[in-house]
Amino acid sequence: MTTSLPLIAADAGGCCAPVTGGVLAVEDAQRLARMFKALGDPTRVRLLSMIAAQSGGEACVCDLTEPVGLSQPTVSHHMKQLVDAGLVTREQRGKWAYYAIVPEILSMLSSALDPQALTDGGPASSC
Amino acid sequence: MTTSLPLIAADAGGCCAPVTGGVLAVEDAQRLARMFKALGDPTRVRLLSMIAAQSGGEACVCDLTEPVGLSQPTVSHHMKQLVDAGLVTREQRGKWAYYAIVPEILSMLSSALDPQALTDGGPASSC
Repeated sequence: MTTSLPLIAADAGGCCAPVTGGVLAVEDAQRLARMFKALGDPTRVRLLSMIAAQSGGEACVCDLTEPVGLSQPTVSHHMKQLVDAGLVTREQRGKWAYYAIVPEILSMLSSALDPQALTDGGPASSC
Repeated sequence: MTTSLPLIAADAGGCCAPVTGGVLAVEDAQRLARMFKALGDPTRVRLLSMIAAQSGGEACVCDLTEPVGLSQPTVSHHMKQLVDAGLVTREQRGKWAYYAIVPEILSMLSSALDPQALTDGGPASSC
């Protein structure tokens, strides 16, 4: 697997067939894996839940540091990985950065893992 | 974050509150992150989709090596990570190992990322 990973931040919405809907193309698997990798850290999962819990699904970085008990540079580093994966957007307003959930991406990831396709019966094939 | 990760393979079903349903407890975030980390690799995402695409959501390791173009030990190494994360079960039958999707875990992960909770309005709080 030496294929370079495409940038997905801008075009990831609805990009990928579900994991449970048939054998994924390599490119779709790379896009999904990049997003899952960003979620593969407990601090980032908590940060995402904190942003989602804010009114409007948006939070100031100033509200995130204290609950996770980490410095602002460390929180910003984690947030950059969520932004780069397309899960969150970042907007600078004066002194502070504001982060917002991208519901379309979360919805796409949620659908990608939905086992519903299994009960519908995938392509028949056995060992 | 020096807390040790709990073993989750056996008890992960329905373990975690959704990422979009309020601020996650550290332990829930650790459990979710461990599963997302297992999915944070394109080969493992493809392997999962291949198993899901088989009839009954189960596949022989002998059917997985050729499509991903990797050796059986490498595939088995990837599969171990999916098994350890609780996403897949492994059963030895004679010469071959058979892997099966765990729909309850995929369903839980799918629900954990569902942005539906956002539109219902989370706990009000702002910067």
